[in-house]
Amino acid sequence: MNERNSTTAAPTLRTTVRRLAKRAVYDRAAVEAILDEGLVCHVAFLYEGEPCLIPTGYARDGSWLYLHGAQKNRMLRTLCGGKACLCVTLLDGLVLARSAFHHSMNYRSVVIYGEGTEVTDEAEKYEAMRLLVEHIIPGRWSDARRPNQSELDATLIVRFPLDECSAKVRSGPPIDDEADLALPVWAGVLPAQLSWGQPQPDALSPPDVPLPEYVNSYTRKRE
Amino acid sequence: MNERNSTTAAPTLRTTVRRLAKRAVYDRAAVEAILDEGLVCHVAFLYEGEPCLIPTGYARDGSWLYLHGAQKNRMLRTLCGGKACLCVTLLDGLVLARSAFHHSMNYRSVVIYGEGTEVTDEAEKYEAMRLLVEHIIPGRWSDARRPNQSELDATLIVRFPLDECSAKVRSGPPIDDEADLALPVWAGVLPAQLSWGQPQPDALSPPDVPLPEYVNSYTRKRE
Repeated sequence: MNERNSTTAAPTLRTTVRRLAKRAVYDRAAVEAILDEGLVCHVAFLYEGEPCLIPTGYARDGSWLYLHGAQKNRMLRTLCGGKACLCVTLLDGLVLARSAFHHSMNYRSVVIYGEGTEVTDEAEKYEAMRLLVEHIIPGRWSDARRPNQSELDATLIVRFPLDECSAKVRSGPPIDDEADLALPVWAGVLPAQLSWGQPQPDALSPPDVPLPEYVNSYTRKRE
Repeated sequence: MNERNSTTAAPTLRTTVRRLAKRAVYDRAAVEAILDEGLVCHVAFLYEGEPCLIPTGYARDGSWLYLHGAQKNRMLRTLCGGKACLCVTLLDGLVLARSAFHHSMNYRSVVIYGEGTEVTDEAEKYEAMRLLVEHIIPGRWSDARRPNQSELDATLIVRFPLDECSAKVRSGPPIDDEADLALPVWAGVLPAQLSWGQPQPDALSPPDVPLPEYVNSYTRKRE
């Protein structure tokens, strides 16, 4: 697969990818697939007029992205009614060109601009908490002890609309200058992916609690 | 290993981790190890007064972090003399607690606050380009075709001081409420790591170019 450039939704001025525009993808399904595969989003916001940045978990529900934290969480409080920029990045490989200059990385990333809103409706909060667990590990909600009222009260949920967002994708081999192609330098891609080790059961667990299949066969790949 | 909390350098007001302060690490060696293992940093900055965020590669040279891009790169130009917040995040595992509420992720992250400076000295620019390649794939510089003058001229290098930075680390098992420990729910950690697939040689390469050992035995782990 080479660099993709499909445009099926009109981007706003701000989400129009300016540098290396050939790497821009505005297709909604591509945006959602990246968000659904990712685990960590980075959130940029203003604090006392200066740029701040924090990594955090998230979940998607249709056209909304949910963040969560403690009620007094400074970032989340600032995000309620505040402008933010969120980014999810997946690294797919290292791109080794013949020339130092053309080295690159294959990746898929989504950038979202939006204003956060505190979720106050209890049913929506509860559902967001379900989605946040299910985003990390699908199937887990049916096993885990559900949130009680005091946990629900202690949790701040903030949602962002997925209205203004775009994806940027680089894939495929290195793009070298033609004059460099004959150089006797290995060139190509070293693929990267997140992989999962042997599950480590908590020492405090009772004996004979079986390993769930959703842990044993864990993957971020979606059908 | 459980959650770490070592303080060997005085943090500034801004880098004092406020939420879950027990996860803060101000140790310089810990900060550098995270930066050296990571491949992608997220950069938050202001553009027309609003928060913006872009993922990009980077390299470290002692107490400096280098970014690079095209001369007209909007982000990099904004960063020259502009305030920014940079973050590198490494995901180490999924933390499955008995309760939905205590689910978490193990991670190591570094946040840096600083103002960017354009690197104009040609020797420093050239050295930064070397470091940017060597950061991605150590050993590569000796094989790759070095930058020529026009590539050097086309490249904008911006450096940030690593003066105001801190790390945040979560490691170890889930921390559940005592009342939940006896629940018959599997709890523990599913370790995560970036892994490397079979190198994919570029179809345009001449035959018989050998795969370098630094690709064959590639790892982000440092001694």
